[in-house]
Amino acid sequence: ALKERGLKVTVVEMLPQILPAMLDLDMANIVKEILEQKGLSILTEKRVEEILGEDKATGVIAGEEQLNADILLSAFGVRANTKLASEANIELGETRAIKTNARMETNIKDIFAAGDCAEVPNLITHKPSCSQLGTIAVRQGKVAGTNAGGGYSLFQGVLGSAVTKLFDTEVGSTGLTVNAAKKARIETVTGTINSKTRADYYPGAKPIKIKLVVEKESHHLIGAQIIGGEEVTQRINAISFAIQKHMTISELAKADTAYAPPLSETWEPIILAAEIVLRKLQ
Amino acid sequence: ALKERGLKVTVVEMLPQILPAMLDLDMANIVKEILEQKGLSILTEKRVEEILGEDKATGVIAGEEQLNADILLSAFGVRANTKLASEANIELGETRAIKTNARMETNIKDIFAAGDCAEVPNLITHKPSCSQLGTIAVRQGKVAGTNAGGGYSLFQGVLGSAVTKLFDTEVGSTGLTVNAAKKARIETVTGTINSKTRADYYPGAKPIKIKLVVEKESHHLIGAQIIGGEEVTQRINAISFAIQKHMTISELAKADTAYAPPLSETWEPIILAAEIVLRKLQ
Repeated sequence: ALKERGLKVTVVEMLPQILPAMLDLDMANIVKEILEQKGLSILTEKRVEEILGEDKATGVIAGEEQLNADILLSAFGVRANTKLASEANIELGETRAIKTNARMETNIKDIFAAGDCAEVPNLITHKPSCSQLGTIAVRQGKVAGTNAGGGYSLFQGVLGSAVTKLFDTEVGSTGLTVNAAKKARIETVTGTINSKTRADYYPGAKPIKIKLVVEKESHHLIGAQIIGGEEVTQRINAISFAIQKHMTISELAKADTAYAPPLSETWEPIILAAEIVLRKLQ
Repeated sequence: ALKERGLKVTVVEMLPQILPAMLDLDMANIVKEILEQKGLSILTEKRVEEILGEDKATGVIAGEEQLNADILLSAFGVRANTKLASEANIELGETRAIKTNARMETNIKDIFAAGDCAEVPNLITHKPSCSQLGTIAVRQGKVAGTNAGGGYSLFQGVLGSAVTKLFDTEVGSTGLTVNAAKKARIETVTGTINSKTRADYYPGAKPIKIKLVVEKESHHLIGAQIIGGEEVTQRINAISFAIQKHMTISELAKADTAYAPPLSETWEPIILAAEIVLRKLQ
């Protein structure tokens, strides 16, 4: 948004890649290139070591470089604010967010937690996670509200489906990245495809890149990352549904999809990516 | 396309509705209204009784009306051309298309059938169907080719996911309509929602209408019909995956979806439609 307003923008990222919760390094580098082509400067593996200026910030020291700036925006990640809960003796979980059961109850009777401060299990690893997405917060709120009001509802866990728009590029993710799977000690096989969002000959067809992450032993789909010019969000939702219902990669490779030249390719790119994984597994 | 080239177009349809394979009457009437707003004239429940003219068609008699025309386009449905198969003593099925097993084999050894002439089971009803969609044909071709080449592959059946673009409106369908379910003696409950394709306040948000069809006893999702200004195809694919994996409507109502204001609503319309079905089932 700042770039679109004509400002010169430099992003300083401590990690080796941007969007680490959504993308693996290979996919993140593609997004980085797209942003650089739009004129952003992105420095990875650089820490902001010092903020310069007296009354007003005038720049930062990052790595060994001095970056002068008129505006300094800090975004150092999100952490659950659990002060109120701690003071009320409500138990926190291993992610330092509020521990809840499947009904979103805390350890104190009649006290429920929902949203960015609440810990919930990941649907694939079953380990506690703190997703801090609006979609998850509203779902948790509904479950907590139903239970608090005397009803019965269970929160089933988080896949972390998310999407964002960077200039004209849509970037989406669901389930585990290869990196997140590795941390959970899950062995994976991936398939990545470059395709188009409409029939190749159709005016307006835009590029789309899909990476599928599959659990090696069970052949279950466990994640996807998509970068494309359009139609990314609903592909993420489609893969989210498939993950939730334990679809195997061979089931996905044969799944029924809709086709019309102005709207899609005959072979849906998700299906083509599934074929690539299958070939690696054979 | 003819209308877009400036011609005055009248559609004569024998059935009470347009797009009967894709939509129920309620949804078809919405598409009809959209087409009429674009200036098309659509006559339903009217048979073309006579084609007028001598050297050249000059019009038709439909119902009791005479419609004069410079161009006459006939589209009286599609039927499998099985002449070659019949002559070769290849067995036909109850849809009058070529009978095949799950490997796309006919009753004659080493002879396979695929595409518009081949009969395959519907994934929900398990009854023979003849889907005649390009997407299905390519999938059947792949299975037939793999088996003919000495490999092993099964065709899993058809949901009939399809999408089309009429002016600026996208119309999609997967699984069974209420009407098709009734013919298969399946009792259904439906949920229909009007929503937007992006956050309501976001410029460019377009209307979308989703109808879900659910099997009453099992609560399994068995079909969907969508009419919208954009992002219809991948929603159809998402629901197709859910149907294939026997997702129940309560699982769908809690499914993890992706959200960003320029790309979607916080509550995905598919999820809202699922909530409506759930309320009817309670």
